[in-house]
Amino acid sequence: MLTTFKATAKKLPEGLEVESSSRNFKITLDEPKNMGGTNKGMNPVEAVLCALGACESIVAASFCDKFGFTYDDFYINLEGDLDPEGFMGNPDIRNGFQEIRFEMHFKTNETQERAEEFADFIENTCPVADNLTNGVKLVRTGVVRDQPINA
Amino acid sequence: MLTTFKATAKKLPEGLEVESSSRNFKITLDEPKNMGGTNKGMNPVEAVLCALGACESIVAASFCDKFGFTYDDFYINLEGDLDPEGFMGNPDIRNGFQEIRFEMHFKTNETQERAEEFADFIENTCPVADNLTNGVKLVRTGVVRDQPINA
Repeated sequence: MLTTFKATAKKLPEGLEVESSSRNFKITLDEPKNMGGTNKGMNPVEAVLCALGACESIVAASFCDKFGFTYDDFYINLEGDLDPEGFMGNPDIRNGFQEIRFEMHFKTNETQERAEEFADFIENTCPVADNLTNGVKLVRTGVVRDQPINA
Repeated sequence: MLTTFKATAKKLPEGLEVESSSRNFKITLDEPKNMGGTNKGMNPVEAVLCALGACESIVAASFCDKFGFTYDDFYINLEGDLDPEGFMGNPDIRNGFQEIRFEMHFKTNETQERAEEFADFIENTCPVADNLTNGVKLVRTGVVRDQPINA
């Protein structure tokens, strides 16, 4: 059954700081000072890495019993390469990450082969990995102008 | 110049809760109870919407002067449709979002035409929008097994 997830991002008055929220949860996002921000939070591309890593972690925890894989601890290190010249206007460089790499760590007595089979399963199941690998249609439904009160 | 951004996601001992971190910033991600979690934070696909909205907000704030567009406040509402049957194993349904929609709100005296031109610019510049629209290569660099201490 199709489920609709929602969020709002609101630019705060100063600098580049943004408060993003979904349901009753909030994330502060910003840019470091060398990118023009005030460093009040991680930036959006770092948040994408965090979302991907969390999604793979949750898939692992949700499906390990079904898969028959036993582990205690799990963490995942992620990194992505981005060239800011892209979004600064160089048409030969893409704006976003050019590649994302990740390394999974399990605390487990399972064999290496089984750990890699489970890692394959995680990658092939993770919703965020699907959207990043295969893309997703973004649809702008509107641009709404609210007039300044003192216009 | 290629810049590498990093993050780590670590599964916490109980439930599906994950602590994702980048530099010294942390986000708690979890699933609601109806998805098997304990609802300690938004979930990863909601975090993707938050990252996209924040990225567009930051692009707007960073480039408005260069674009010659004046506004006071900005927020963006986002929603995405996902069918959990996909990641539950139905091969005919994709695992991630099937579509993401967003609506931009500017408090501005600019014309509707200019607001839509600026919205086009934002969409075409935003790094997270690029990665979600066009996809990005995900590379697993390793699966590391740490043996349980009491193995």
